[in-house]
Amino acid sequence: MRWRSARKFSSGSSKVAANEFERRRQTVAAGLAERKLDALLVAFSPNLRYLTGFTGSNGNLLVLPDRAILFTDPRYQIQAGQEASCRIKIAKGPLVPDIVAAIESSRLRRIGYEPGRMNCDLFESLNARLPMKASLVAVSGWIEQLRTIKSASELERIRRSVETNSRAFEQTVKRVRPGMTEQDLAAELEYRMRRLGAEKPSFETIVAGGARGALPHAQPTAAPLRPGSLVVVDMGAFQDGYASDMTRMLFLGSPTAKVKRTYQAVLEAQLAAIDAVRSGVSTSRVDGAARRVLKGYGLDRAFVHSTGHGLGLEIHESPRIGKRDQGRLETGMAVTIEPGVYLQGFGGIRIEDTIVVTPAGCRILTPTSKDLRVIG
Amino acid sequence: MRWRSARKFSSGSSKVAANEFERRRQTVAAGLAERKLDALLVAFSPNLRYLTGFTGSNGNLLVLPDRAILFTDPRYQIQAGQEASCRIKIAKGPLVPDIVAAIESSRLRRIGYEPGRMNCDLFESLNARLPMKASLVAVSGWIEQLRTIKSASELERIRRSVETNSRAFEQTVKRVRPGMTEQDLAAELEYRMRRLGAEKPSFETIVAGGARGALPHAQPTAAPLRPGSLVVVDMGAFQDGYASDMTRMLFLGSPTAKVKRTYQAVLEAQLAAIDAVRSGVSTSRVDGAARRVLKGYGLDRAFVHSTGHGLGLEIHESPRIGKRDQGRLETGMAVTIEPGVYLQGFGGIRIEDTIVVTPAGCRILTPTSKDLRVIG
Repeated sequence: MRWRSARKFSSGSSKVAANEFERRRQTVAAGLAERKLDALLVAFSPNLRYLTGFTGSNGNLLVLPDRAILFTDPRYQIQAGQEASCRIKIAKGPLVPDIVAAIESSRLRRIGYEPGRMNCDLFESLNARLPMKASLVAVSGWIEQLRTIKSASELERIRRSVETNSRAFEQTVKRVRPGMTEQDLAAELEYRMRRLGAEKPSFETIVAGGARGALPHAQPTAAPLRPGSLVVVDMGAFQDGYASDMTRMLFLGSPTAKVKRTYQAVLEAQLAAIDAVRSGVSTSRVDGAARRVLKGYGLDRAFVHSTGHGLGLEIHESPRIGKRDQGRLETGMAVTIEPGVYLQGFGGIRIEDTIVVTPAGCRILTPTSKDLRVIG
Repeated sequence: MRWRSARKFSSGSSKVAANEFERRRQTVAAGLAERKLDALLVAFSPNLRYLTGFTGSNGNLLVLPDRAILFTDPRYQIQAGQEASCRIKIAKGPLVPDIVAAIESSRLRRIGYEPGRMNCDLFESLNARLPMKASLVAVSGWIEQLRTIKSASELERIRRSVETNSRAFEQTVKRVRPGMTEQDLAAELEYRMRRLGAEKPSFETIVAGGARGALPHAQPTAAPLRPGSLVVVDMGAFQDGYASDMTRMLFLGSPTAKVKRTYQAVLEAQLAAIDAVRSGVSTSRVDGAARRVLKGYGLDRAFVHSTGHGLGLEIHESPRIGKRDQGRLETGMAVTIEPGVYLQGFGGIRIEDTIVVTPAGCRILTPTSKDLRVIG
């Protein structure tokens, strides 16, 4: 592959979407004053895509009160023009001199930057070339916060990603037989997602049979799926830039009473957490709803992670839905609900849906049945 | 998927490999003095993996003259113990306090860090907590430089990755028919790589039919492959952590004289570049060899990128083999050789192999025939 090849166009180049990107930039522009900023410099690629539609691998965006400038290189000249509706500046070499020139000519003083998203090299390179009276001001999580609330078009993309994911799961589950390896099952799931329109998996597909399901590092191995074993399948797609995420459980053979009981506990916990979701609820309360059910089964100590996370242009976004998380859910957030229990020697059971928060509750996007899939 | 789930174990946990990681750390430890450093802090995950074998998503490595400490969190406790042979420190929360404690207790003064690989947040967090007399010193490209020369075991992994890639290509090409979409062909290639042992593609597979082959952003679309068209297939695998990269051309139907002539030009350019490779040659000379051939065909201005790049734990590593690149090739470097020409309205033609530099020339790892694949 050529050094840093470009990615395909997003469908964000349509007229409607261009307006949406412009609205987002206007929101940022309008928020500059209260942060005492003259501009915001965006270097993190999901944030850049969110504000412009641009999907190239090399770009920086400077958002000023009355306009925005996208800096990129000649490889992306055509693509940037098609994807982004703001001004575009093509630099022949590094982008920094052009960014500094824009800062100079607009006499910007306080330029916000994203410290958790910018590497020290870029920061130093910018900082060393700034005009006398200009300075870089750390601004964390602003765009990420805006991104938590999805627009109708974003929700539609997430829904399509979820649908691809679920259809790929159904097409594949039919073919599962004892003896199939974890790797082959993962390959089949990913192939089906790709055929259904996904660009790629939204993370490395997890297929973990038997006791390995209890390990946190449960990537697929060459081990065959054995009769009498539980299998965790955790999968997601990126489609048109947006992520989906789902976990379902398979059982090869006749589930034991312990499997049934544990599955029931996790299912009740998942339903209780979903039931707790509505606009305004604290994330820790949603997490607590799942944890309380598992406590009733004596399984709370086996639930070793948080209940869910936001997803969108990234597979893991804000908010995080955990025991110690402080935020509140809001209408339009797309999040996962995925309690699980992990018992050494027994395996893991997790059930996960992608949902959207609504004023009175939530809409479950994942259409897949939550029954334990018994195979053979 | 759970927030930041861990990845599968590398096979780097074997005894032999552990010694190799230890040797690499010793090389770094031995190079500290000449850089006037008391330690090097490694935060970039491919560099961390190179020095320890650790594949978790959250880790920092502090290399001191007489030992190395890997800092990670409880999710990776078991995995770190199995993968890494150095000391391991598990932090319950952020890793920074433990790193600072180690700096304090060892009375380190000058601690190297990788400015292009560390974000400003981590830098600030560390810098604010350092003991009085300690300071962070920017050290760029050191580990990346070490990584350019592959060991025998690394070359063996790259060879296996290349083999998977080529086998997947052969299995898939048999099935290509006009009407198949670019996306379906890409899905099939990726599926075959996965079934043959790859973890994932080493980049987004490029399948670009007809005139789209001339675009730099040639990711697969839903467009069907048409009779009478050229198709660029650029693909690679990550297998056991190591990348492969290959480009081959298909033609659906009977190639025109222009296609044949252009193909011949690119093939001659690729062979000339390969012919120029040997230990000690400058990268610009290898690039020039390809460019000179294309000039003879009047196609040099249609060759808009560089001739190749290193690959290994990343798909794009040093060295870069381009017109203005200064380095020299050395024995044990694994690089691609991939000249191409791009003509608007006609399409693109690129031919790419993965090779290893030897004292007198090179070893071509890619076993796939370089004939234009004529289909149907």
